[in-house]
Amino acid sequence: MAVYTHLGAEELARLLAEFDVGTLRSAKGIAEGVSNSNWLIETEGRAGNGPEPAGTHFILTMYEQRTDVRDLPFFLGLMDHLSDHDCPVPATIHDRAGNAYRLFDGKAVALIEFLPGVSVSVPTPGQARAVGAELARIHLASADFALSRANDFGPEGWQSLADGCGHEGFLAIDPALAPLVERELPALLAAWPTELPRSVIHADLFPDHVLMLGETVPGLIDFYFACTDITAYDVAVTHAAWCFDAEGRAFNPALSAALLEGYEAVRPLSDAEHAALPLLARGAAMRFAMTRAYDWLHTPAGALVTRKDPMAFARRLEFYADPENSAIFAKPAAR
Amino acid sequence: MAVYTHLGAEELARLLAEFDVGTLRSAKGIAEGVSNSNWLIETEGRAGNGPEPAGTHFILTMYEQRTDVRDLPFFLGLMDHLSDHDCPVPATIHDRAGNAYRLFDGKAVALIEFLPGVSVSVPTPGQARAVGAELARIHLASADFALSRANDFGPEGWQSLADGCGHEGFLAIDPALAPLVERELPALLAAWPTELPRSVIHADLFPDHVLMLGETVPGLIDFYFACTDITAYDVAVTHAAWCFDAEGRAFNPALSAALLEGYEAVRPLSDAEHAALPLLARGAAMRFAMTRAYDWLHTPAGALVTRKDPMAFARRLEFYADPENSAIFAKPAAR
Repeated sequence: MAVYTHLGAEELARLLAEFDVGTLRSAKGIAEGVSNSNWLIETEGRAGNGPEPAGTHFILTMYEQRTDVRDLPFFLGLMDHLSDHDCPVPATIHDRAGNAYRLFDGKAVALIEFLPGVSVSVPTPGQARAVGAELARIHLASADFALSRANDFGPEGWQSLADGCGHEGFLAIDPALAPLVERELPALLAAWPTELPRSVIHADLFPDHVLMLGETVPGLIDFYFACTDITAYDVAVTHAAWCFDAEGRAFNPALSAALLEGYEAVRPLSDAEHAALPLLARGAAMRFAMTRAYDWLHTPAGALVTRKDPMAFARRLEFYADPENSAIFAKPAAR
Repeated sequence: MAVYTHLGAEELARLLAEFDVGTLRSAKGIAEGVSNSNWLIETEGRAGNGPEPAGTHFILTMYEQRTDVRDLPFFLGLMDHLSDHDCPVPATIHDRAGNAYRLFDGKAVALIEFLPGVSVSVPTPGQARAVGAELARIHLASADFALSRANDFGPEGWQSLADGCGHEGFLAIDPALAPLVERELPALLAAWPTELPRSVIHADLFPDHVLMLGETVPGLIDFYFACTDITAYDVAVTHAAWCFDAEGRAFNPALSAALLEGYEAVRPLSDAEHAALPLLARGAAMRFAMTRAYDWLHTPAGALVTRKDPMAFARRLEFYADPENSAIFAKPAAR
């Protein structure tokens, strides 16, 4: 959550001249995105096809080392594809040569449509319902997207992250974490489904990545974990992200019901998907517990990065692993 | 240069409801300001007196611990005063009760006018001339501003900072720094002028704190070092900030001449001010060398803060201390 690169007015103006978006009026480095630099850009007096409203806004993203440039055709192509299919996803502004991204001082940069809205901290059921519906729409709209991308943080990834933490590392974080991971991880790997429908998934649809205005969703953003994987796993990730308090202690049944209702109003889940959701949700909780645990143990002491507590997702994992809680994922008639 | 506090949509909306600025449409944490949290806010459908254009923008500033709340009436009152006097300074938006700032979760926050423009990295003489003229305008416009504030980083402050670094500290930074400070600091303290005209000064007018569009100046910002001090000292600070390359190795005579010309076109300097400028410029260079040296030695290892090189201003100090360079500050006819 920082701006990693400084760009002066001259460099920004030189970069924007490669796009038909008018001239630079304002640029503010914004604290958004996991590991890229972002600027909120305002331009005026678009050079090209006739007058545009004054004050046109864009997000300029510079991809820093954590984003592999080879993935950009997938990420940016997906955003354009979903935007073309009327999903609330920012389209990329192509440069004068038609490129979705270009290199600037050796780094890839993309100019991206600005969408309004703000991220909620304490969602309402109406907001969860709207997010569920938009998640289903991107799953449906991605059906004819030509590219695919492996999930770096799928089950094999959890095992690698767990190996990188180690028994002692888990114990250092919390005495309860080591036995939990050692019980759950082999069980998940053994039982992970292989036959469920697959599609492009967002894979990281936390409230931070949803722009809302009241109960509408003007923007789904930050597609930089998007990949091709089990469609219902994305429902599970979004469920884990939206239906608990931040510490993972309090499950909110109203948010859970609303999220699933919203999703199924657009894309009903099959019996097999319903049956798999408790397991997929354990996996989703494992994914974030493992990435957080790894970052917790490998963040240098004194670094100003805020480490996120792995236990917030370990608690979700315990919740989802309790068979008594499986009913929350039953078909609506059975809930 | 970070956002220190997280505010969710609900908190932002609750805060903005205290102002007559319409409803929240977008909020982005921006990487601006030395030590405060800032958001670029967009609102729509202003509630109050008739229709406003859609997409009205503001800067929301939350003052973190480095800003003393007791100074806010001076800082914010000054901005309002200068804005009222047609200086390109953002006015504060007062809340419904008429307050320039309010407390929110125990911290002071202010809503501030958004001004367009971008900060230049490599100024042109035309830009330096425009900045000089605006600096003179704020000096003149502040004449009837009622409040005053001591300069925390005046000569007594340099001595305290130097004591906090120590001979060994200076040597650790650069072998040349200790003898330079030990030669210059006592000389500056002994010779520092007491009879020159005083006014409110910005005291930190680096290119980062000037919003430019071409050669116009839509915004002078970041008044959080503003204070009451020798008016010509502000010319010296601005000179040190604008007329060298970043490392302080290359003095740019064209920028120097343009900055001073621009200033004197609005507020001619007296003979006494011209005569004092070489000394005042040595002081300005000392001020930034000392704050940077102190921060250099007291920033924890591993912190992600970028330490700024004190030697960039030690080199300026050497430049200004060379009597051969005094002529750059002579009256225009003598330059």
